[in-house]
Amino acid sequence: MTPLAIYPVRGLPEIDQSVSLAGLILKGIRQLRLLLRPADVVVVTQKIVSKAEGRVIDLNRVVASRPARELAERIRFDPRHVQVILDESVRVVREAPHVLITETRHGFICANAGVDRSNSGGLDRLVLLPNDPDESAAHLRDELEGLSGVAIGVIISDSFGRPWREGQVNVAIGAAGVESLRDYRGGADADGYRLEGTVLAVADELASAAELVMGKLERVPAALIRGAQVAGAGDASALRRDPATDLFR
Amino acid sequence: MTPLAIYPVRGLPEIDQSVSLAGLILKGIRQLRLLLRPADVVVVTQKIVSKAEGRVIDLNRVVASRPARELAERIRFDPRHVQVILDESVRVVREAPHVLITETRHGFICANAGVDRSNSGGLDRLVLLPNDPDESAAHLRDELEGLSGVAIGVIISDSFGRPWREGQVNVAIGAAGVESLRDYRGGADADGYRLEGTVLAVADELASAAELVMGKLERVPAALIRGAQVAGAGDASALRRDPATDLFR
Repeated sequence: MTPLAIYPVRGLPEIDQSVSLAGLILKGIRQLRLLLRPADVVVVTQKIVSKAEGRVIDLNRVVASRPARELAERIRFDPRHVQVILDESVRVVREAPHVLITETRHGFICANAGVDRSNSGGLDRLVLLPNDPDESAAHLRDELEGLSGVAIGVIISDSFGRPWREGQVNVAIGAAGVESLRDYRGGADADGYRLEGTVLAVADELASAAELVMGKLERVPAALIRGAQVAGAGDASALRRDPATDLFR
Repeated sequence: MTPLAIYPVRGLPEIDQSVSLAGLILKGIRQLRLLLRPADVVVVTQKIVSKAEGRVIDLNRVVASRPARELAERIRFDPRHVQVILDESVRVVREAPHVLITETRHGFICANAGVDRSNSGGLDRLVLLPNDPDESAAHLRDELEGLSGVAIGVIISDSFGRPWREGQVNVAIGAAGVESLRDYRGGADADGYRLEGTVLAVADELASAAELVMGKLERVPAALIRGAQVAGAGDASALRRDPATDLFR
């Protein structure tokens, strides 16, 4: 039988605003001797989407405010980095030495507001999250569909930590054309018991699955998932829990 | 190129203590016209592992204590179900109508201590988590390796909710023979920037990836992952965050 298949998409150059991300991804897929097929899902790391959108800041042009300097001293961070994180955030959720967890303007709760100094294209550069990752996913999907002529899904992934569990996993911060949440409520199991409350975060599972072929150091910034049967009309905003129903907010 | 491939393993009967889970999984894999290969990972849902270990309780034989009845009234649960959840837990983390999040004896923080009434093999039956999911994974791995003659990894998965994000994802509650955490700390990215704090929870990502071919209602209780390059000596205990370093405990 044909399994669900996940292919690493390699060979992309360093990304900046001058490139066509969709064109480079399709070139990487062609190097696998593949063509996009309907219902394929392309997973792309946030890092290259942000770089293609110019969401990059030179640390040397950042002036840290007094609150940023004070926080940076407490958590032992570069104060300019803290300033950029605060600019991207609506509140600090937790601080500890070398750890800063905030809620971003988008509503994500994650380390450093997603502002990352690694793989940023230079030692003094910071890459921010896209302004609107769902919009970024929809745009990339339009371009990939325009170039390939087939209807696909796109996920923009980032690595988030979790309370209570060690390690980070990749989650979907943006999505287009996928069933982000699969709702089994109201369904019945084989015994006739109603599956109350069972909703699976399929987009996050796709992002995690794609990470298995990416690796942090090998510059595999995209993956192609084939056979997942997840085509849908969802985006990733559905994955941000409503604060009103969040027991941990 | 050969992708990472995920196959659903179907055709298993209703599981109880009389069966050989390893034998049934291998039979399901043979029905895919496949044989286990070295470094394959078999992901199995907690539900069938628990059933094979007899971790099933008949609700009609449970007598709810007064604290269980009071909690059940507040959260509108069956008091007998609440009693079993409390018996499996060391503390209640959050309660709300229809929601009970506890820390289990194993150290997992999850809904209902993992005690589940759906797909339990009968309307009045509850399935508990295995007593020691890492031990269960090691045992299943030994049996699969004994029968197949190849060294593989095993993951036992369950669906957990997360703070801040909607939906559940499958995580690894038990593992054997896999690199549960992949540690990139001390590595350097292409710019020479040290990747501080980047540790990926590979076992959880494998569990999430497998869920994509399982589905809750279709009785696909196992999956075969091939090509993930995750062989290692880890178990899932490494994924339970040390309370001393957990900012959300």
